[in-house]
Parts: sequence; structure tokens; C-alpha cells
Amino acid sequence: MDVHQLLTTPPYDLGHPYFTGMPHFPSHPPFLYSLTKKHGDILYNDGVSSAADAIALGTHVGTHIDALSHFSCNGVCFGGRVVQQTYEHGMAELGVDTVAPIVRRGVLLDVAGAEGVDVLAEDFEISPDHLAKASRTDIRAGDVVLLRTGWARYFADAKKYINNVTAPGVGLAGARWLSAQEVFAVGADTVAFERTPSSAMPVHKHLLVDSGIHIIEVLNLEELARDLVYEFLFVAAPMKIRGATGSPVRPLAFALTSPQR
Amino acid sequence: MDVHQLLTTPPYDLGHPYFTGMPHFPSHPPFLYSLTKKHGDILYNDGVSSAADAIALGTHVGTHIDALSHFSCNGVCFGGRVVQQTYEHGMAELGVDTVAPIVRRGVLLDVAGAEGVDVLAEDFEISPDHLAKASRTDIRAGDVVLLRTGWARYFADAKKYINNVTAPGVGLAGARWLSAQEVFAVGADTVAFERTPSSAMPVHKHLLVDSGIHIIEVLNLEELARDLVYEFLFVAAPMKIRGATGSPVRPLAFALTSPQR
Amino acid sequence: MDVHQLLTTPPYDLGHPYFTGMPHFPSHPPFLYSLTKKHGDILYNDGVSSAADAIALGTHVGTHIDALSHFSCNGVCFGGRVVQQTYEHGMAELGVDTVAPIVRRGVLLDVAGAEGVDVLAEDFEISPDHLAKASRTDIRAGDVVLLRTGWARYFADAKKYINNVTAPGVGLAGARWLSAQEVFAVGADTVAFERTPSSAMPVHKHLLVDSGIHIIEVLNLEELARDLVYEFLFVAAPMKIRGATGSPVRPLAFALTSPQR
Amino acid sequence: MDVHQLLTTPPYDLGHPYFTGMPHFPSHPPFLYSLTKKHGDILYNDGVSSAADAIALGTHVGTHIDALSHFSCNGVCFGGRVVQQTYEHGMAELGVDTVAPIVRRGVLLDVAGAEGVDVLAEDFEISPDHLAKASRTDIRAGDVVLLRTGWARYFADAKKYINNVTAPGVGLAGARWLSAQEVFAVGADTVAFERTPSSAMPVHKHLLVDSGIHIIEVLNLEELARDLVYEFLFVAAPMKIRGATGSPVRPLAFALTSPQR
Repeated sequence: MDVHQLLTTPPYDLGHPYFTGMPHFPSHPPFLYSLTKKHGDILYNDGVSSAADAIALGTHVGTHIDALSHFSCNGVCFGGRVVQQTYEHGMAELGVDTVAPIVRRGVLLDVAGAEGVDVLAEDFEISPDHLAKASRTDIRAGDVVLLRTGWARYFADAKKYINNVTAPGVGLAGARWLSAQEVFAVGADTVAFERTPSSAMPVHKHLLVDSGIHIIEVLNLEELARDLVYEFLFVAAPMKIRGATGSPVRPLAFALTSPQR
Repeated sequence: MDVHQLLTTPPYDLGHPYFTGMPHFPSHPPFLYSLTKKHGDILYNDGVSSAADAIALGTHVGTHIDALSHFSCNGVCFGGRVVQQTYEHGMAELGVDTVAPIVRRGVLLDVAGAEGVDVLAEDFEISPDHLAKASRTDIRAGDVVLLRTGWARYFADAKKYINNVTAPGVGLAGARWLSAQEVFAVGADTVAFERTPSSAMPVHKHLLVDSGIHIIEVLNLEELARDLVYEFLFVAAPMKIRGATGSPVRPLAFALTSPQR
Repeated sequence: MDVHQLLTTPPYDLGHPYFTGMPHFPSHPPFLYSLTKKHGDILYNDGVSSAADAIALGTHVGTHIDALSHFSCNGVCFGGRVVQQTYEHGMAELGVDTVAPIVRRGVLLDVAGAEGVDVLAEDFEISPDHLAKASRTDIRAGDVVLLRTGWARYFADAKKYINNVTAPGVGLAGARWLSAQEVFAVGADTVAFERTPSSAMPVHKHLLVDSGIHIIEVLNLEELARDLVYEFLFVAAPMKIRGATGSPVRPLAFALTSPQR
Repeated sequence: MDVHQLLTTPPYDLGHPYFTGMPHFPSHPPFLYSLTKKHGDILYNDGVSSAADAIALGTHVGTHIDALSHFSCNGVCFGGRVVQQTYEHGMAELGVDTVAPIVRRGVLLDVAGAEGVDVLAEDFEISPDHLAKASRTDIRAGDVVLLRTGWARYFADAKKYINNVTAPGVGLAGARWLSAQEVFAVGADTVAFERTPSSAMPVHKHLLVDSGIHIIEVLNLEELARDLVYEFLFVAAPMKIRGATGSPVRPLAFALTSPQR
């Protein structure tokens, strides 16, 4: 496939929109918005006017990526890095600004589809068997592997999407299955990737702290699944927020084979 | 060139980092940051802990794209759309959330390089002649055309970068030269794209309101210019902020020909 | 005591400062700060320059007051008002903007002092007996009653102050003792007023929903206690944030009798 | 007048409400608001639920006070203090957190009333003669002197209130008249206190930098004027934002003589 084909076939958009009232994990600050000025408030010459906006949000709100510095265990992050942190400047190491633009092979595991349901049940723990069953292509070292639970269709209803922090996801065994394949990042269409509630967040700990594998959350995987696109070019560029533990991101998926639309 | 080559050659990163104290146009809210919790503040079981962050910023702060709704003339935006706006929800039409992922041919016009300087003078108005002189490849309808003034190297010094809102850029004649080629978007490495100060912002008006051409600002074009990459695959995915007039974005440039590094 | 004496004796300042990294209850957005411009960034004529700032915070961060709309039970707030709410505009009724300036008789119950300790233990539940024992003056209908646990001295250490949401405070019996006296508001020097952790927040429910009694939290009561000021004029003016469930406030206490400093 | 009378007569509320879309000086970040959680999103036991909010704003938005560090001249603030500033921590000296609670004699000069108009014209410069003419009581050292232009009645219409930064106010001569009386603070019901537009902000410079006199802006003085209350007890407690150049404040005025309502 020639690279120029990328110019003629629109990619899949794996990001959700941002708006006041959008879902957010309870411990993360919500998304705030306002115009800063309206058209007409201030006029340049010749009838010209501009409007602009301000926003505020937690870095783990909406479609976002976790930097490796997001989790620690006994004061140590991935690679044995001892936590160094300040409120003003965040993390001295492994900030999301150190994540290079992500241009990698992507793989979709449509777990909901493989189970024959639109959406996995809120207490569904995705096991290695479920992952194997949902695999339609091989997984290679360095890939980005995305797991579909179907939860994205609840996104427009914040209460239903957050669901009192109860949602399907992989358990520790599933996380180990993923890390064993030496992927670069994993993702899902839920807010927490791993099955929640969880008292120890073992999947985050295993992936971010032990394995150095990024986690992407709140993805929209509905269109990929609808079109049976299981292998794709995955491109994502997080905001380079210095020292931050996460960042909004709007990943794109370019089908590497002709989709059956 | 095969698409799989994209997986092995890192793209150029055209975005600047975000940090407290970073440059911002005076009328736009600055970037704010804090950890929301430190590692160790709250412990999950087994010694596991997480940190997270909050940010606030204007939507035209840092590397960003202007939606077509950013400017109006006599109450009308591009395509004759009469402005409909509220502080809470922004623009009813032409919001930045309606900008599809941008995957287009990109072209660099290194104006500073063509003029034989590191950085254009603060009062340098880029004319059609300067643009023609800096063209190393053809420009095609639908392209994204980026103009380098060299200003990016001031980014680390907010006062110097903003420079009391005085910076080089195209004037109206240059903007018309660009719009005549029916490009999709234009960009520059300054905060305002057009030469400022300006009492009527004619370039913004001509591009956004009359021509429907997006503007990308605060780009980092130093590496592209260093490597003489004048033609590339340009990929950018703005945050889909509903109704907003702009959005942070971290564009990527994939060299379509082998760069001479 | 003549009102003009108020002009010559400084009141007690019951508010804590705001700064990046200050304590905040985990589910509330933290305090963010940045200068928006530095002195010297933009010069007016004659060498004159100005600096300004931006902040972001949860409305229940720092010394603050809870509006009656902060809590509900089965969808109903105080006075049988059915919850009407939107993310953009908050609460249709009982917003903090409806709280008139508070100018009332204030009473300090120094529970820690009465128990002979500097700071109550983290699992100390304040009972009616403790409240009675700490009473040095009568409580009258309409008063503002402030309970001192000594916790304010931990404020400079955010982790210690929040303490994984474990802190002393009244239990339901203590709350009923307070509401029986028909006070206007109660307050404490902890982040949650009531003893936490709590699975049902019965004190908040009893005071805000059943009794229409406001709650003021994160107070600094150390100086009042040091000076043995148990009765005072209490003055507080919350920010009138339309529809909000809470607001920062910096309450003042004017000793009504000569303090024994 | 006995201090206990303060408990029975409500004070005048000199603050305006905060809401998305409220007026703000163009160079200051606007007010943003959202609920962080709705009632019912998360349930405690027994049907109990809570809602909370987040806000973001410039420190000079809405009714607010200018710290002495807000202005400088040639790099020096009041009292010869050389500016020391960082984006993260603001001003090393003269931050708004160093302003003690303000409990002072207040004086209203109803300039609009004295001129026989509801609202002063947008180009009206208040001179010493106008100030003298509007004086109904003496001004004493340490007082807070508030000037009424009538502009507060435009507050609900943000565009009209800001008026492209054109509004009545004192000029330098008027500012000198005020500083000669050694007042503690001055205030007005406009966004900039001094007549604007101004290329050098001489009134801010004279009051804040030369004289050490605070400025309070965006006051609501309509009720004081309606009731002919020219002398009062003025009480205001700014948020103690560490290092900030300004702060929201909701001042109260207690009539010292019986008002003629």
C-alpha cells in the first residue's frame, strides 16, 4: 500500500468530543469551557471580529493516554525510577511530554464482538482466553492493542458511562497476556481500561510500573469494529504537557487493508 | 514509498511543549498546571499509588489550529453563516470539533532560509515575492502550507516570543497568494501567523472568513528546515472541543522523500 | 461595645491561604495558579507595567462554605426541593449565590482544648457529651457554631491534612445536638466537618438536607482558641457563584468581649 | 451605635455575581464553571448524594481588589520593592495574601448622582471638582472611598459593561485628590476604576505604585446610592491567594447611621 493512499482515505477517528458535562472519572477534574470573548464584543477595523475560548480539565479526562509516571509502587515508577514530584511541575521523569509521537501498527481485539454482545456486562473480566478468542491477527512487539468492550456507546450519557466506576476490563491475567507480547501500548473504550472497581489497580500497576506499557482510555472503537478493521496504522500525538502523568489525545487509525464497509 | 516505512522513520514533531509560563497571546488565558494528587497521597493496596494532573488554558495557546469560526466580519463567518454563539457552548457552527483529522500533503516555505537569515525581523512582511522565492516544490489544492520565519527559536523565552505582539508574517497580498492556490490550511511558527500589530487582522479575515482556510500557529518548523524537508505528509488531530474556535494540536510531518540529514 | 471599636481591633482571620499544592479533598479539583503576564512583558507608556493572574479550583477547596444544594437525599434537597441541575449552570435552587452575607453571633467549641489535647485523634468522633463539655457560652438560634479539632495545624502539609480522608469530626448524634439548637451554620477546621471516612455522610445529610444548616470547612481556629475567644461576631461573604454548591470564603471573627491575649 | 445592631440590620452587598458569560476585562481570563458531579451520579448509602463544582477565572474578574503588586514602574513596585516574580508563584512581595482583612470606615461619593445623571457618560473624566461636589461627608486617613459612576447597572450585559474598554473614571488629577487624603483604598463600579482607554494607566500607577493605595473594581454601588448611605463600615476579606496581584472579594457596607430607605 502506497503512502499516498493515506491522503485519499479518511482515517478512523478514535477520539470522543469534549464538552461541559462529558464523562470523567470522579477523582479527575471535569472539563470546563467558556468563550473568552464573543464575536462583536471587540471590533477590529472594517467590521472584523474574533471569538476565542478557554478550557480547563484533568489530564485523564476524555480520550487520553497515561504516561508511565501515572502509577508507582512503593515510591518507584517504571525502570526503578524513584518518584520525584512537585505540584507545580509534576513528575521529574517519565512525563507525558517525553512520549514521542506514536506511529505504530495497531490491532483491534473486539472482545464484545467475539462474545456476541453489543456491550460487555459491567462485571465482565476479560481473561486471556477472551483475548485469544478475539484475536483476528497476530500481535507483534511494539504494537498498540485496543480492546473493545462496546462501552463507547454510553459516552453521551455521563452517568451511564462512568457507572459509579463499575465497568468491564481486563484483569491481571489478561494484562500479563498483553505484556507478554511486548506491546508498546494498550487501550480500551472504558474510562479505566482495567475492570473496576479495584482495590489495588493491579492492571495499571503491572502495565505502567512493571512493564513500561502505556494505557489509552476512553477510546471510540465502534467504527473500527463495525468495519471489521483489525489491523491498522495507529497515529497519536499527545499534548506535550511538561511533567504531566497523562494527556488528551485523538488517535487515528488508518486501515492497512481495504475495509469492508 | 510504502506505508510501512512510516512505522520505521519517526515523524517530525511540529508542536511545542506546554508548561506554566509558556508564551501566550495576551488576550488568551495562559496555561495553568498542577498535580491533582501526588504519588503517595492516597494508597491503593499493595503499595500502589497514582498521580494525576489538571490543566487550564486558552484554546489558542501553544501550537494550535484556528477553526473557521474564530473570525467573523459584520457578524458573518465563512460561507455566509450568521454568528450564533453562547458563552457556555461556543459557536453553533464551524466549531473546531467539526474539523476532520487532517491528513494532507504538506509543504514548507522556509522564508527565513530563502532570505538568508536565521530569523526574520520583527517588522518583516512576507510578500508574494518572498513566498515564491521560498517555494521549493509546487503547491496543490488541498495542501497544508507552512511558513517558517525562524521565530520558533524564541519559544523558550515567553517575553521575546510574544514580543509585545510584534512579529513577522504575511500581509494581505501574501494571504491572497496562498488562498489563490486553494490550500486547506496555512501555518507559521509565530503566534499570530500574520504580521502584527495589525488594526484589522486582514489576513485572518481573508483566510478564515472569505476563503475557508484554517490557520495553524506556534509551530516548530526548525527541524523540517534544518533537514531541507519541503514536502511531507502532514497529520494533525485537534481536540474535538464542541463549539470551540480553536484547539491545541501537535502536528506531525512525515518526510515523503528521504531527508538529507 | 460600640461599633467603632471594630475599626481599631483587627478581627481574627479564619481562612487559610490558597496556593498550588494546598490540601484538597480528592474528589474536588485542586487549586491551580499562574501569572497571566509578568511585569515587563507588556509596557504601557512611561515605564508602567502590570502583572495579573489566573486561578482554577473546586468550589469546596480551601476554606469554604457548603450551600444547601451540596447534598440531596433520594433526589430531594432541603425544604423538599426536587433537584434541578445542569453541568453548565449548576443548581436551579439553593445555589451558594443565594446565601446572604453572613453576619451572626459566632461561638467556638474548642473540643480539642476541652479534651486536653493539641489535636484530636484521627478516629475521634465528637459526641453530644464532647460538645457540651466544650461549651463555654450558650448557643442561640441563628448562631454560627465552630468546632475545633486542632487539625488546622496540619494544613501546610497537604498529605497529613487530608490523611487519606480520615479525620475527626462529629457523628450523627453530635449533628443532631447542633441542629436541635437551630443554628444557622456550623463549621470545623477539617476538610469534611463530619468524621470520615463515612459510607453515607449522615452528618452532611442531616445538616444540609434535613435541617437547612450550612457547613463551613477548612477553617483556621487556632488563634481564636489560643486567645480563649468563645463568643464573637462572625462575618463571612461567600463568592456569589451562580448555581454553585459551595464557595471559597474567608470568615472573620470579631471578639465581642476583650480577649485575654 | 452598638455592635449588636450589626446582627439585626443586613449589610449592603457590594459584590456582583459570578457566572459564565459575566463581564471581564479582555486581557483577563473569563469565568468558567461546571458541576464536577451531579446529584445522583454517585450514591452514598441511604439514597444520599452530593454535587460539587469547579471554577476558573482571572483574579481581576468580577468584583475584586488589586494588590499593590499589580502595577510597577520601571521594574519597581510600591515602597521601592524591585519586582521578583515567577509564573508559578506570582509575586514575592505585596501579594494579595498579605492584605489583612479590611475593616474600615467607608465613604461613598455618588458622582453620577451629584451630576444629576443615572450613569456618567463613557468619556466622563472625574476631576477633583467632581469629587468635591459629590462629597457628603469628610474623608479621613485610612478610609475606603468608593466612587459611583452608575455603570453597575450595565453589569448584566457584558458587552455594554466592558464597552470596548471605554468607561468613565477619575483622571490623574482626581487620583491625586484621593491620595492626598491618605485613604487606604479606593473603588468604583467600573472595570478599570480610572477613565479608559488610557495609554499609560496613570491612575493605577499613581495609586498602587506611588501611593500604596489599593483599588477595588466592579463594585455594585446602586443600593448604597439609592439609600443615600454616604458613610459606612466597610468590611472585605479577599481570598488569600499566595503571590497573586488581585483577588475576588465581596465587600459589605454597614450603614453607620440609619438609612433613609
